[in-house]
Amino acid sequence: MILAGIDLGGTKIAVAVVEQQSSRVLAHSYAPTDSPQGPDAVLQRIATLVHTTCAQAGFTAADLAAVGLGVPGVYDLATGHTHFLPNLAGAWRDVPAGPTLHHALGRPVWLINDARAFVLAETLLGAGRNAHTVVGLTLGTGIGGGIAVDGQLWEGLDGTAGEVGHLTMNLDGPLCNCGNRGCLETYASGLAIARLAAHRLATAPESLLLHLAGGAAEEVTPAMVGQAAAANDAVAQSILAQVTRYLGAGVANLVTTLSPDCVILGGSVANLGEQLLTPVRAVVRDRCRAIPVDRVRIVQAELGLDAGALGAALWAGAKTEKIP
Amino acid sequence: MILAGIDLGGTKIAVAVVEQQSSRVLAHSYAPTDSPQGPDAVLQRIATLVHTTCAQAGFTAADLAAVGLGVPGVYDLATGHTHFLPNLAGAWRDVPAGPTLHHALGRPVWLINDARAFVLAETLLGAGRNAHTVVGLTLGTGIGGGIAVDGQLWEGLDGTAGEVGHLTMNLDGPLCNCGNRGCLETYASGLAIARLAAHRLATAPESLLLHLAGGAAEEVTPAMVGQAAAANDAVAQSILAQVTRYLGAGVANLVTTLSPDCVILGGSVANLGEQLLTPVRAVVRDRCRAIPVDRVRIVQAELGLDAGALGAALWAGAKTEKIP
Repeated sequence: MILAGIDLGGTKIAVAVVEQQSSRVLAHSYAPTDSPQGPDAVLQRIATLVHTTCAQAGFTAADLAAVGLGVPGVYDLATGHTHFLPNLAGAWRDVPAGPTLHHALGRPVWLINDARAFVLAETLLGAGRNAHTVVGLTLGTGIGGGIAVDGQLWEGLDGTAGEVGHLTMNLDGPLCNCGNRGCLETYASGLAIARLAAHRLATAPESLLLHLAGGAAEEVTPAMVGQAAAANDAVAQSILAQVTRYLGAGVANLVTTLSPDCVILGGSVANLGEQLLTPVRAVVRDRCRAIPVDRVRIVQAELGLDAGALGAALWAGAKTEKIP
Repeated sequence: MILAGIDLGGTKIAVAVVEQQSSRVLAHSYAPTDSPQGPDAVLQRIATLVHTTCAQAGFTAADLAAVGLGVPGVYDLATGHTHFLPNLAGAWRDVPAGPTLHHALGRPVWLINDARAFVLAETLLGAGRNAHTVVGLTLGTGIGGGIAVDGQLWEGLDGTAGEVGHLTMNLDGPLCNCGNRGCLETYASGLAIARLAAHRLATAPESLLLHLAGGAAEEVTPAMVGQAAAANDAVAQSILAQVTRYLGAGVANLVTTLSPDCVILGGSVANLGEQLLTPVRAVVRDRCRAIPVDRVRIVQAELGLDAGALGAALWAGAKTEKIP
């Protein structure tokens, strides 16, 4: 069975053509999202990309058993309409993404949240492949997440389970894009790091971190924070300390709730590796007193850039198999 | 199949004899725990209570297919030893409670956390009986909890999933009995309410709440807070506002993580009914922006005092059936 998976991001579209039995990626392609062109143009570009990626793998779209579309937000699984994709221009309110792609490709299309697709792939094939209960977090511009048990995604109402970026970490904290206050995303996302850096660098012009960002504090990336912290830059170290303190408390709350055997961190912030993982593990150990934390592995994702598209493909395969 | 369930609490022991097929409680009994007498005496009292309760139901202990023992803390399911029951004198560190009862009763004994037993019973027979995913909280002296999916308890590592009393609500909050800071239990348990009342009443001697407690601020119960708040007592209303603000945020975090269709609140604090539920629902609606909260029922428990013992009995029945 051949499947296609799409990871529709705020800046980039990734497509993978996958053989279900082996879960092997046969071919993959990338294109810019360019969301200001509007949903029709973006969906047309996705359809074209699916066709060319199928051709690379020696197939046509007609060979696909199903197509999975990972979207960065909320959608309706039954209708295939998007409800709210805040990182795309116009937020894609009630866009018939599934039906449109179905019409363009002639194959069944299943929507999934992009972070849940990532978690599914990492659970089946990546860092969580030997675990029973997996919690995954995508620490990118925003924070997404998902939960998998026995190799199956925990869906919750409309596939919304695992929205861990919007855990309240501070009842009176900063306003989040979602409208709530003090969400984890306001403390530990890439955007939160850039904001925190801009704030701290305003009074620390001598910081190596500002130099790495070419003098533009708002351009600071997680990788720059890691590099400057490793060189003992005080601003970078204080940013890292605050991020890991809140992220650690957020992971601790997930561990306390779910008592999982594996927590997977992915995305640009997780690429900080042990600079992030070591302090996060320490916070979890300190805050989770009623859980056997020695048996909770807190690890970095393994599958890299294709995880989302691969997970979306596997999701479509699983959904298609369930239909009699 | 006849089962016995035991709810071992800090102050009281409840025993229920249950017919598995109908889940009907055939007989029940209660006795004081009197934990300062030590584990041997307490376990002996439990065994006697099981015998007398069986006799009330027209059976003997030999007729029991299995016995479930709900304990207020952490235990080892495989060995039946308790690890840490903080509300019992001496904390029952490594007490062979399961083997001792097995020896006394001659029947298989299965341990379960008391809050998880409550959640199992409410899920199968109480407020969650038509729900797919249930999160339950026991708001008593402390706060316990559990998660059930498709009528089965989510166990996690060593049965520790659902320890929601120890969700960090404030990274720098009050020290909790568990050693962590800012746990939900320090804001919304019966003990937290009594502490908050003592603090507020020190500067409000005219409060009706102090009158209801007979002048002893440390004796304030959740029921007194409800009564005084209904009579427009300002201190009681401010206590209720703080409790529901934190409890609401805690429930919101559980809803954001699990996207359940039912949240059940039990215990003495939950007996405040709509005085508690209405503001908690408002906080959840305000903080959960990515979940279809209209479909999350937040309700009071239905089964009353026998829920824990009944759940422990059903747990033992389920565990016994799994053995070939």
